Amino acid sequence: MVASSARVQAHSFIEKRFGMALTPDFDTYPIDFTISAATAERGAVHVTWSDGRVSRFHNIWLRDNCPCVQCVHQVTKEQTFELVTVSPDIHPVAVAVAADGSLLVRWSDGDHASEFHTGWLRSNCYSAEARAERVVQRTTWDSTTLSEPPTFDGPAVLSDDAALYEWLVALRTYGATRLRNVPCTDEAITHVIGRIGIARDTNFGLFWDVRSEPNPVTNANTALPLPPHVDLPTREYQPGLQFLHCIENQAIGGDSILVDGFRVAELMREQYPSEYHTLTRTPFDWANSAKVTDYRWRSPIIVTDASGAVTEMRVGNWLRAPLDLPFEQVEEAYDAYRRLFEMTYREDLQLRSRFEPGDLVAFDNRRTLHARSEFTDAGGPRHLRGGYTERDDLQSRIRMLERAMRERRVALGNSTLG
Amino acid sequence: MVASSARVQAHSFIEKRFGMALTPDFDTYPIDFTISAATAERGAVHVTWSDGRVSRFHNIWLRDNCPCVQCVHQVTKEQTFELVTVSPDIHPVAVAVAADGSLLVRWSDGDHASEFHTGWLRSNCYSAEARAERVVQRTTWDSTTLSEPPTFDGPAVLSDDAALYEWLVALRTYGATRLRNVPCTDEAITHVIGRIGIARDTNFGLFWDVRSEPNPVTNANTALPLPPHVDLPTREYQPGLQFLHCIENQAIGGDSILVDGFRVAELMREQYPSEYHTLTRTPFDWANSAKVTDYRWRSPIIVTDASGAVTEMRVGNWLRAPLDLPFEQVEEAYDAYRRLFEMTYREDLQLRSRFEPGDLVAFDNRRTLHARSEFTDAGGPRHLRGGYTERDDLQSRIRMLERAMRERRVALGNSTLG
Repeated sequence: MVASSARVQAHSFIEKRFGMALTPDFDTYPIDFTISAATAERGAVHVTWSDGRVSRFHNIWLRDNCPCVQCVHQVTKEQTFELVTVSPDIHPVAVAVAADGSLLVRWSDGDHASEFHTGWLRSNCYSAEARAERVVQRTTWDSTTLSEPPTFDGPAVLSDDAALYEWLVALRTYGATRLRNVPCTDEAITHVIGRIGIARDTNFGLFWDVRSEPNPVTNANTALPLPPHVDLPTREYQPGLQFLHCIENQAIGGDSILVDGFRVAELMREQYPSEYHTLTRTPFDWANSAKVTDYRWRSPIIVTDASGAVTEMRVGNWLRAPLDLPFEQVEEAYDAYRRLFEMTYREDLQLRSRFEPGDLVAFDNRRTLHARSEFTDAGGPRHLRGGYTERDDLQSRIRMLERAMRERRVALGNSTLG
Repeated sequence: MVASSARVQAHSFIEKRFGMALTPDFDTYPIDFTISAATAERGAVHVTWSDGRVSRFHNIWLRDNCPCVQCVHQVTKEQTFELVTVSPDIHPVAVAVAADGSLLVRWSDGDHASEFHTGWLRSNCYSAEARAERVVQRTTWDSTTLSEPPTFDGPAVLSDDAALYEWLVALRTYGATRLRNVPCTDEAITHVIGRIGIARDTNFGLFWDVRSEPNPVTNANTALPLPPHVDLPTREYQPGLQFLHCIENQAIGGDSILVDGFRVAELMREQYPSEYHTLTRTPFDWANSAKVTDYRWRSPIIVTDASGAVTEMRVGNWLRAPLDLPFEQVEEAYDAYRRLFEMTYREDLQLRSRFEPGDLVAFDNRRTLHARSEFTDAGGPRHLRGGYTERDDLQSRIRMLERAMRERRVALGNSTLG
């Protein structure tokens, strides 16, 4: 792409066409800073803000994000403009700041003009500083840095949005939390998940019970110990968030164990780089060849994204299908797997606690491994009820709660300079 | 891992403990070949089959897959054995073939012995030949190689497992198929998806209607053209399979278009390797900042697995959030995106057809892009009804249909030599 190098001075002949600058979606954008200056230079519009920050927006980026009635459907707030309909060399012929603070741009391509809402523009600045401010914190942990999962009051979370927000941010940050005092009913988990998003249906049902049964369909429903695992590693889409609600627990044994899989991955990378590499590259086979379904998936145990960051762990000792690799890779894969398996049993990595009735543990099922020790219900039954939703449901809920805070802030007028 | 290098001759003192060799899951394993010889050498058990093929099973692999009552829970058929409880150097002290054909192994570690079902063992051979035989075919297409999506009879698929199997294999192979003569009712799609797996619930509902509406929540529910896209690129888990059932269509225009996204990726890799690389590495932001939810995800457009194979496409022009990249990457990202977008509009890559009532298009939503041309319902309404399920539901159903075929084969006795 040849970027425009013409320097275009801001001038005033661009008409302001809308009473209030449009935004391209249903979010709310408080105006905390105003634009001091805007100039077009070297393929980008340079915007200087009232706090001294400079944002540079590429011409094509600005044109692509035009929120006008021709470019964005005003009922759905979805884009109708198609990038391929303009030249990659499109550039401003005029740039100005309107009296209400919006950025105005008239384009080289036809008669189009764009008007960018000040708050929206600032919140989408992609300078290094702005991008660093937007990074969401994720804190890995082990039993030397966290004595128990961050714990919150169930009834408060169910009724109060501020309490809900506090819980959800902890869940996003640590990938493991606990609620206390959740009503000991079968329906309670439905209400808890309903505070976040859509319950995920699976081959084990929309909600499911964990107790020792005479004819179990899974080892989860025996009294056996379960080694650290995620649920449904056998599915292409391992559930993102898991909820386990203790309705009754008179069992002897059956301690609940949580392990931060991302901490395990960090330690593997530091201490056993070769095994770490093997686990990120080698596909393992996962299977649940049951009576009526046969779910299988093939994936490395440590899944990384294009930048090398760990995005998910796929671990479940008893749900591995026979390893299906070229002969010469088998020993290396077993060695790496053994190293990881041993690490998940390290006491300094395990948070161990006993489920009390009313406890509800909520965790990132693709990050935090869970386990239990063997138990006997000689003392009485142990009954957990579980369900799933997804990571992006959590994030959508957090964003909606934050949007509501911004809406209140704008309504109070204490942060809208525009 | 130090593999045992002791050569152990087969001998007869291993007891056969079970009347019939156990298998570690609920699948069925016909015995099409018998074991001619089995010896332990250089860290593996070498099995020679009646057709001359040789399988080499690593000692640790065999020990890990022991199906005995101590190692596999006999009701759940899930493993209870934990790899870390045996030495990595575990090796056979005796190997034999039982009278019923099973492979018998006595282990160096304690008193354990394993008995492997002949059919199971053969089907899990990981020789290069056996692995090549198991590769599932996936065929990319464009309008020069495919004139229309593979088409099947709806009522047959709904009632007959052989017809169902034929359809599902085509869906897996081509990622795009069509059913004809599906009853024009709101419930029909429920029955079609029910033939495969669990309907996927999303922020648009378990099933949803596509028609031009006065107050649409998405551009899909306008009469506007929609450029080639996948559904819900805004979700971490884009639905794996999409179903669009035409209940009514009297509209003028509104042609339906399918594009094989994997073919697009192939062509990008061949013709524009630099842009291809950019699209596999650069995270784009996807957003649906709606009134009550705010789903977003960040992901490259072309997603590849650890081996570099393309696993999914994430494309939807009007669901892109503002690009959020370091300044110096923005132009490159736009150039690559433009190249891809142009390619999805190439006529030689588009399958174009008109929906007739009773048509149901089923496609891999993470592979096959769909689009529609503009329409007007001046001629009468256009009403599609849609739903989703997942790729692994499809694969589970295919495996279960194949398992039933194997069960019939075994019941008829015509392929069980054991």
